[in-house]
Amino acid sequence: MWRELLPVGRASGGGWWRHAWTGADAECREWFRRQAAARGLAYEVDRNGNQWAWLGGPEKGGGGTGGDTGGAGGAVVTGSHLDSVPGGGAFDGPLGVVSAFAALDELHGRGTRPARPLAVANFADEEGARFGVACVGSRLATGQLTAERARGLRDADGVTLAEAMERAGHDPGALGPDPGRLARVGAFVELHIEQGRRLAAAGGDHPVGVASAIWPHGRWRFDFHGAADHAGTTALADRRDPMLTYANTVLAARKKARLAGALATFGRVAVEPNGVNAIASLVRGWLDSRAPDEETLAAVVAEIERVAAERGARDGVRVAVTRESFTSEVEFDHGLRDRLARLLGGAPALPTGAGHDAGVLSAAVPAAMLYVRNPTGVSHSPAEHAGEDDCAAGVRALADVLEDLACG
Amino acid sequence: MWRELLPVGRASGGGWWRHAWTGADAECREWFRRQAAARGLAYEVDRNGNQWAWLGGPEKGGGGTGGDTGGAGGAVVTGSHLDSVPGGGAFDGPLGVVSAFAALDELHGRGTRPARPLAVANFADEEGARFGVACVGSRLATGQLTAERARGLRDADGVTLAEAMERAGHDPGALGPDPGRLARVGAFVELHIEQGRRLAAAGGDHPVGVASAIWPHGRWRFDFHGAADHAGTTALADRRDPMLTYANTVLAARKKARLAGALATFGRVAVEPNGVNAIASLVRGWLDSRAPDEETLAAVVAEIERVAAERGARDGVRVAVTRESFTSEVEFDHGLRDRLARLLGGAPALPTGAGHDAGVLSAAVPAAMLYVRNPTGVSHSPAEHAGEDDCAAGVRALADVLEDLACG
Repeated sequence: MWRELLPVGRASGGGWWRHAWTGADAECREWFRRQAAARGLAYEVDRNGNQWAWLGGPEKGGGGTGGDTGGAGGAVVTGSHLDSVPGGGAFDGPLGVVSAFAALDELHGRGTRPARPLAVANFADEEGARFGVACVGSRLATGQLTAERARGLRDADGVTLAEAMERAGHDPGALGPDPGRLARVGAFVELHIEQGRRLAAAGGDHPVGVASAIWPHGRWRFDFHGAADHAGTTALADRRDPMLTYANTVLAARKKARLAGALATFGRVAVEPNGVNAIASLVRGWLDSRAPDEETLAAVVAEIERVAAERGARDGVRVAVTRESFTSEVEFDHGLRDRLARLLGGAPALPTGAGHDAGVLSAAVPAAMLYVRNPTGVSHSPAEHAGEDDCAAGVRALADVLEDLACG
Repeated sequence: MWRELLPVGRASGGGWWRHAWTGADAECREWFRRQAAARGLAYEVDRNGNQWAWLGGPEKGGGGTGGDTGGAGGAVVTGSHLDSVPGGGAFDGPLGVVSAFAALDELHGRGTRPARPLAVANFADEEGARFGVACVGSRLATGQLTAERARGLRDADGVTLAEAMERAGHDPGALGPDPGRLARVGAFVELHIEQGRRLAAAGGDHPVGVASAIWPHGRWRFDFHGAADHAGTTALADRRDPMLTYANTVLAARKKARLAGALATFGRVAVEPNGVNAIASLVRGWLDSRAPDEETLAAVVAEIERVAAERGARDGVRVAVTRESFTSEVEFDHGLRDRLARLLGGAPALPTGAGHDAGVLSAAVPAAMLYVRNPTGVSHSPAEHAGEDDCAAGVRALADVLEDLACG
């Protein structure tokens, strides 16, 4: 199952490129459909392009069609996403979907007879790598992103999300909230590779942890407007070089984040005109920042903005900051979290700085996450890795959780 | 004449985009051909794609065909280039070509009978904005760039110079040194908008200056190799973020240049994977640096490299530096320079940091440059500007120089 998925969207010898609604994404989605078919699961794609594979379902629409497999609202759903960041790793996303199918196999092997419907889900466009907004599929379903805004999102080539979905054979006119389907879900559990090395650093032997909370996080676009000029003739004192202001802001962001116990990263830059012998007229840098609480996050970003504006004044550079996205802190359902931790023999509870579909869905349904140990902590890179034994432990833990939730 | 050329390759309301061997470049070249035809000048394109328009020529091949219009080596040539940097200004290059034709018109109006052949030239790919090497047409002619290396140069889309020339209808197999044609040239004078504001700052009324020297200059590519990772989960202490090393190097370059009286600019950047929520694995920044002498330039670049390596060691980032191009200091022919300055009533002599075809050609023929005053000093930007009166003064000065050289 895993081997079949691995080559999809991989650059030769490098990272994985599985941006939403591309050819590589379509291959991943076809793989999902085949996995559902191979297990006799009822397959469906919802209005927002998320894929579902139902055992004892499917739970279509808002009405109760579950029959003897459980009443409305009782379904236990697991899964994650199959898209990736540019040059990403093999585990972020796919591990949760592969483990979900494997956990169903494990339950089948145990002879488990679930009392409630079970489903595996693949949420569309989780990474937001192509259109700039993360968790599009789950945000649309929960109403946290409007269909109108989603349809108008553009990728770097100017292609809208609506156009990309249409080319991929999905009707963008159908996008919108999906309260009927969410009402069928009694619990959502997402398994994910840990993005960091807290489990490894915690000592003891804990291949699997439970999510406690997701840090509030957001993306801010910093536009540094200077003046284009000739790099070989313009006296330093006559320049309005936005690259200097940008550089100073990058270093300030790191320092302010460190002092506040937060995270701040500039990982994406666009320069105009971007010529070797031309002083830039515009440097655009995107700040990704996250912190344990919203107050700290706001303070860190405000500090970075202040330093950027101050240095900009010295450089003759105008700085404009736009908040492109923001996600409040997510506290996962305490009851579900504690139930999972007990069930898994006291698995450690971990906070994270990364957004997930489970975090988005937690606004609408009880949601939880399991993390599989990542010894190096590397993520969003082809070096991202979890050991085979730990992955197997993740599948067993997920099977235990599903069994407990679906039979209890 | 000027009005016809202005719209070519202009972005709506913005700068000019006339990269070598593109459609906009072809339009400029067609404009040149029409100007030659309108004046009854003999038009030719040399083996390296440079355009020539001859009055009392053309001087083809290495043999003396000048007849009664002057002996071998006696031709007086003026001109510049028509290509631009990305988003460049209207004057850098075209002013020299337009003024060359206008100066011929002026001589015609004066009833001047030149004793030697006169020619207007448009040198191909002066800016090097597309293929990364400047003054390709003149460097090939003088043998400072081999045909093999030129043909293999690639643009950002992977298109080679050979392919681009072929598509533009020019045979790349013909590229190579052109000593026969250069031997026909007794003097080359390039008129150019000043890139800086020394003439304006000098006081007095000097709309036109004479070039003294071109600073040595070069381009260095700095590759900062870090490790891709998740911006939302990787602890700051666990990162190997090349954006930090890059940012520190940008600020250091400015400081080292300032202390040495040199210039240093990072105007072009490429980031991998360039995702908002991904720590970069690679930041590539191009340094353009120039100084009054080669020793100072070498010292400044060495200092920047040292600081980059030191900071890289702290950031866990490997820094590799590649010199992509280098041009030694050019001292223009003293006799010609002094003759022009006297002729123009004591025009100020100015050094510059910018490379020019005249600088390249000075290795093979006596060469000189005239600068037209640029009140703001802005260059390589749509804001680049010279006043109408100053441009007219430039044409008169060029006509005076051509008359003196061609009749004397």
